Amino acid sequence: MLNLHLTDRSALPAYMQLYTQMRDQIRSGGIPYGMRLPSVRSLMQQLGTSKTTVESAYHMLLTEGYAVSRPKSGIYAANPFGASQPAPPSAGTDRTLSGPLPKGPAEEAHRIDFRPSAVDAQLFPMRSWRKMLHDTLDRSGEKINKYGDPQGEYAFRTVLADYLRNSRCVVCVPEQIVVGTGIHYSVGILAKLFAGIGRIAFEEPGFAPVREHFNQYGFRIEPVPVTEKGISVEALEQSCAEAVYITPSHQFPTGSVMPYPERERLLRWAQTKNAYIIEDDYDGEFRYSVKPIPSLQGLDRDGRVIYIGTFSKVFTPALRMNYMVLPLTLVEKMNNVNYLFDGPSRIDQWAMQSFIEQGHWYRHIRRMRKTYGKKHHRFIGLIRDYLGEHVRITGHSAGLHIQLTVDTNRTSGILVERAAAEGVKVYDLQEMWMKPVPSERPQIYLGFGGVSEQQMEEGIVLLKKAWEGLWEEA
Amino acid sequence: MLNLHLTDRSALPAYMQLYTQMRDQIRSGGIPYGMRLPSVRSLMQQLGTSKTTVESAYHMLLTEGYAVSRPKSGIYAANPFGASQPAPPSAGTDRTLSGPLPKGPAEEAHRIDFRPSAVDAQLFPMRSWRKMLHDTLDRSGEKINKYGDPQGEYAFRTVLADYLRNSRCVVCVPEQIVVGTGIHYSVGILAKLFAGIGRIAFEEPGFAPVREHFNQYGFRIEPVPVTEKGISVEALEQSCAEAVYITPSHQFPTGSVMPYPERERLLRWAQTKNAYIIEDDYDGEFRYSVKPIPSLQGLDRDGRVIYIGTFSKVFTPALRMNYMVLPLTLVEKMNNVNYLFDGPSRIDQWAMQSFIEQGHWYRHIRRMRKTYGKKHHRFIGLIRDYLGEHVRITGHSAGLHIQLTVDTNRTSGILVERAAAEGVKVYDLQEMWMKPVPSERPQIYLGFGGVSEQQMEEGIVLLKKAWEGLWEEA
Ligand SMILES: Cc1ncc(COP(=O)(O)O)c(C=O)c1O
Ligand SMILES: Cc1ncc(COP(=O)(O)O)c(C=O)c1O
Repeated sequence: MLNLHLTDRSALPAYMQLYTQMRDQIRSGGIPYGMRLPSVRSLMQQLGTSKTTVESAYHMLLTEGYAVSRPKSGIYAANPFGASQPAPPSAGTDRTLSGPLPKGPAEEAHRIDFRPSAVDAQLFPMRSWRKMLHDTLDRSGEKINKYGDPQGEYAFRTVLADYLRNSRCVVCVPEQIVVGTGIHYSVGILAKLFAGIGRIAFEEPGFAPVREHFNQYGFRIEPVPVTEKGISVEALEQSCAEAVYITPSHQFPTGSVMPYPERERLLRWAQTKNAYIIEDDYDGEFRYSVKPIPSLQGLDRDGRVIYIGTFSKVFTPALRMNYMVLPLTLVEKMNNVNYLFDGPSRIDQWAMQSFIEQGHWYRHIRRMRKTYGKKHHRFIGLIRDYLGEHVRITGHSAGLHIQLTVDTNRTSGILVERAAAEGVKVYDLQEMWMKPVPSERPQIYLGFGGVSEQQMEEGIVLLKKAWEGLWEEA
Repeated sequence: MLNLHLTDRSALPAYMQLYTQMRDQIRSGGIPYGMRLPSVRSLMQQLGTSKTTVESAYHMLLTEGYAVSRPKSGIYAANPFGASQPAPPSAGTDRTLSGPLPKGPAEEAHRIDFRPSAVDAQLFPMRSWRKMLHDTLDRSGEKINKYGDPQGEYAFRTVLADYLRNSRCVVCVPEQIVVGTGIHYSVGILAKLFAGIGRIAFEEPGFAPVREHFNQYGFRIEPVPVTEKGISVEALEQSCAEAVYITPSHQFPTGSVMPYPERERLLRWAQTKNAYIIEDDYDGEFRYSVKPIPSLQGLDRDGRVIYIGTFSKVFTPALRMNYMVLPLTLVEKMNNVNYLFDGPSRIDQWAMQSFIEQGHWYRHIRRMRKTYGKKHHRFIGLIRDYLGEHVRITGHSAGLHIQLTVDTNRTSGILVERAAAEGVKVYDLQEMWMKPVPSERPQIYLGFGGVSEQQMEEGIVLLKKAWEGLWEEA
């Protein structure tokens, strides 16, 4: 007999008490999945309650999937998330990890994960950030109880505008900045501002989650090939796109950097076609062998560029904070139509403002640059030492990930698999293609931001072991 | 001669240096609006630079609105935000304040503001929240550098599910909860999940910003009258709506509470029509003279109700955190299509989880209930004392605002104006109508959450003074 009881002293009606108790026992395993549940009649007798009560509870269990009915047999306990259960809490979904559609059971844990979006675990400026939060709360006064500007705190945007000019040659006034919670937030706003635009060109391969998101909003996607100079402007000129999404500072995933002449040509395209360029500058702070090239936004004289930056690389993705710089025409459109949105916590915006104003920000970036510069150097060195002439390294002049072209006639899928068998996670470039085409040699991309130097070495040694039998014979 | 100079040692190209310097001087007032700017030729000479450089800089100033060109006369400095300047930084846009379209110059400051969305300035649990943030950061470990689940931290959602069951009779599993940054975040997700739905019914009058937002997403809005029992289910049954947005615990703005029989009838409508009910339970924690009625979500046996709650009332709107409970069918849809979104900071979610788990939350709510209960009592008392039989108070059995029907043949606009002339801000119910119809007697709504008891008394005394000459003669 199940352990169930109804009481008059609950705020919940009887059927809800019954439903909740049964559901909780099914969830906790007290009633195991697959167990046959008592008949309506026998529960009525056990609990001394009405038929409606029991039927209502069963109806809810069935609707929610905690029970399934087998005709002529009875009602059985079930796991509503049986087949399509979301990843368990600890897994931490990573959008760039498994492509745009992370689904299914959690990935097995890898000993070493060269995840491209990961950042260094030691670098978070714990002490100063805690102090900023503390001081900010202390000084907040009446503001702590009020709504702020949905576009972002004005004073914070002012500080951001200064930083962007100094550091990224982005030229803007605070009115052009929209503070958000991440790139999908920005895409959501652009989707509305782009009413009337039908086709958006995308780097191929490119950042699949953003492509997927625009697609969900009903835009037609035109894949445009990426060369070692970033998106092919020539191919773009042939397309019918009215907007283009690009990562010119360090193309995702190939890592190429768009040179100055291509930038000017791209801007001419936008001017001629009255098209918009979405410049995603996600890791532009980190450059190694290249001289800084001003952002497209800074070169733009016609208000065609939308610039998107993030705190996910230079600070932490856990904060969920980014920003978008709109050209003035779109600012006006936004103000006129009153787009409604909810950005990140005001408290975090105040804290970040102080963090920048008090110089912690620049110190932090210098520290990150130094650490990543060192890691980058070591990473390239290790790959050359262990994998030698069997791989070609590209896309390594900036950012936190690189691309490997591997000298084998096996597929990239096999390479990923063999690596996984040794406990090393590397990423298949194919997954970032909209319409994958087989490349002559398989391509893999790896991030070095989230691994220690020791893990790095261990990982590369294991990769050598994993791939050794696969090299193309000379 | 303007104070401008170009250098080779800047990261910015010459035209950008020139543009930036001129723009900054225009912004700061160094070059006043309306001042005639030097000709291209004279700037070339002054700076020893090329025609292209000067022309490019002027082109940018003109594009961005920092300069205007008057034919046959020259180029003049201008304020790009002249006419449509967004509200200045300190004003703090409040969405419920001036209706869905807050625009134009900042409102004059009122001495006493009965703003409906305001919360008590003294109640924010500064000490314990600071401690939660502190401890959370301390314990965060590796997680601080990683992306989380875009649907919200799983452990936080588990705690939320428990709270919702205990406190609001909302029955759900964590998989049904989507943590967001506010109601517009939730609306953004619903807009996608509602693909295929054409018409959404709305309370008339109702919460204009949400109505406006659904409208922007392309849904047809069907206004349905509100009675003293909430939305008229009878009228809804006559409509073609496939979904309805309602505030049954305390209708916004009229304040009516939907009784149990109407809830059951509404649920039957949804079941019959396969329609969705969006239940916005924004201030359901605060009840005065009414017994708690379980949320619609808790009564729903068919998975038709979407429940939305917020931390803006019981905690603070500055945090930008809310949550939505989806029926399982929509959870499945969401999982299958992989809707991409960015919720609030993980750190804030962890802190809120601890805040609830450690019992601060329940203590805080008890404290809020007590304070607001007291304020509510005093507010009603003051209105009765000073405005007496000239006004009728309704919608005061729950929440943080009430409705006044005023015994005068003047319009609500006049009442608001007269109040403003005495330095008191009250709110015109007309603004929350989609298609305003003149009511027999003008209606005003006022919040008491954000004013102290002293301000409250002062405000009501001033209202008496403001309206005294307007009473209808008996
Ligand atoms: C290409 C690209 N854009 C943007 C981002 C950052 O997005 P967010 O600001 O939402 O964290 C990433 C993160 O990995 C990325 O790889
Ligand atoms: C009717 C209604 N719904 C919802 C909200 C809360 O929205 P949010 O969670 O975005 O702060 C408010 C705030 O004033 C409101 O009045």
